[in-house]
Amino acid sequence: MKVTILGNNSALPAFGRHPTAQVVSIFGDLLLLDCGEGTQIQMQRFGLRWRNLQHIFISHMHGDHYFGLPGLINSMSLLGRIAPLHLYGPAALMPILQQILDVAKTKLAFPFTFQPLPDEGGLLVDNDIFSVTCFPVSHSLPCHGFLIHAKTKGRKIVPAKCHEYEIPLSYYDTLKKGEDYKRDDGLLVKNEWVTTEGPEPKRYAYCTDTIFTDSFLPFIMGADTLYYESTYLDADKEKAATRFHSTAMQAAQMAKMANAKQLLLGHFSSKYKDIEPFRQEAASIFPNTIATVEGTTYDI
Amino acid sequence: MKVTILGNNSALPAFGRHPTAQVVSIFGDLLLLDCGEGTQIQMQRFGLRWRNLQHIFISHMHGDHYFGLPGLINSMSLLGRIAPLHLYGPAALMPILQQILDVAKTKLAFPFTFQPLPDEGGLLVDNDIFSVTCFPVSHSLPCHGFLIHAKTKGRKIVPAKCHEYEIPLSYYDTLKKGEDYKRDDGLLVKNEWVTTEGPEPKRYAYCTDTIFTDSFLPFIMGADTLYYESTYLDADKEKAATRFHSTAMQAAQMAKMANAKQLLLGHFSSKYKDIEPFRQEAASIFPNTIATVEGTTYDI
Repeated sequence: MKVTILGNNSALPAFGRHPTAQVVSIFGDLLLLDCGEGTQIQMQRFGLRWRNLQHIFISHMHGDHYFGLPGLINSMSLLGRIAPLHLYGPAALMPILQQILDVAKTKLAFPFTFQPLPDEGGLLVDNDIFSVTCFPVSHSLPCHGFLIHAKTKGRKIVPAKCHEYEIPLSYYDTLKKGEDYKRDDGLLVKNEWVTTEGPEPKRYAYCTDTIFTDSFLPFIMGADTLYYESTYLDADKEKAATRFHSTAMQAAQMAKMANAKQLLLGHFSSKYKDIEPFRQEAASIFPNTIATVEGTTYDI
Repeated sequence: MKVTILGNNSALPAFGRHPTAQVVSIFGDLLLLDCGEGTQIQMQRFGLRWRNLQHIFISHMHGDHYFGLPGLINSMSLLGRIAPLHLYGPAALMPILQQILDVAKTKLAFPFTFQPLPDEGGLLVDNDIFSVTCFPVSHSLPCHGFLIHAKTKGRKIVPAKCHEYEIPLSYYDTLKKGEDYKRDDGLLVKNEWVTTEGPEPKRYAYCTDTIFTDSFLPFIMGADTLYYESTYLDADKEKAATRFHSTAMQAAQMAKMANAKQLLLGHFSSKYKDIEPFRQEAASIFPNTIATVEGTTYDI
């Protein structure tokens, strides 16, 4: 699982930084988290193919988190997309989108579904490759965080060994699930002879926009990577609280409390040109911190 | 009067080109014509100050002409703008904007007015410096062109001469209007002794998106500069007609028919990487043609 940052700024674009959007890539599937203005252009710029994007998640109804959505959907349709697209967001989002489509007499060229986020959170998607859960964070508007669980693809095949034991390709998926193989000559090929342990499942937690609170800590506990908003530095923590945002120091505290392995910072206020102080502040108590840069892809 | 191109591409952003938006500058006042996604970022990038922008005109309800509007208005409000903002566009625009503002509980920090475009066209703004008229063009949705008339500031003062005849500063505005000055000693100072001819008034006509038709020719007749959409080259003129768009050749024909002095081309389809063929095609019958480039400012 990897994440590419398309926008790491707060509401006002500044210093070439864009409003919030990021793409999570899981074995080739792309998931879009928030869709600030300019997302379609940023995806083009960073070589992320729309056709591989089938799930879009919108955290809340502040414009810097969704104003890029009508344009992206429109462009997908103009390009003759046929793959389904699933949108998950606040219930208020769909009437606005529908009105925009209706006014332009746009009929989407592809199957499109919308699922409103349940207030109390819950499971949104669950397939063989990943699951996505949403949970309420605490902002000036109802807002949700997302937890993405990239499932293991099972045990890892050792092709040379499989070949040695003459195991047919068609049985490989069964091997990945840990099963042994019984040959026609009666030999029981033990699974551990022809496979090794597969990659660990990974969990990515995304929290923006929110005041510092432990109310959603259970949802993000043990995340491999935590993306947590840091609109301000600690010197502005009162302003952060008033505006239902967080500081870099609070992001680091959250990462520690959640026992995360890595912290990604973003949603920087336009008052800051240099974002290195964000990293420094958080790293003082949570060393494995990255102040995200647009166009950069981070391993989770 | 000058125009800065912010977006010269058609609906699908491509090759770094953005959807439609341009800023007309008249003696320091800025007017925005259409507001495709990314307009606020493009304005920042090209050093155009939002505070000098008080009039926004939206031609029609295809998203590539207005999806940047909610973000721009939102950002102006976040920055604490106090200057009034006047928006002119299709009647269907305001309910969408209002819904977006309401859902986010946004109260704009500045006075904001909306004026729907009359179907048959008409005068939208008229002040000492400029006037703006809209007129219907012919597209798959109701769509308007705009004619901007930068008024002359009157005759040009010759300060040394005014000083010689002891004309008080407070009378300069009257001189600009062409009046003579009667001194206390009875001498009648003829206007032409102390002024020269002022700059010519200029007219800029903006036509996008439209099929090739002479239905609106009377509105654009004699424009100093005509901006006319050229989504396609002549080889695709049937596609252009089907989609209610025009070709570079048709843009040149329109410029000739309107007796314009200069032609600006834009709204290029994303199928073309190189836009020089648009200029060549149009220039074959209308030599003073420019294929616009984003970030470039053109004299009108």
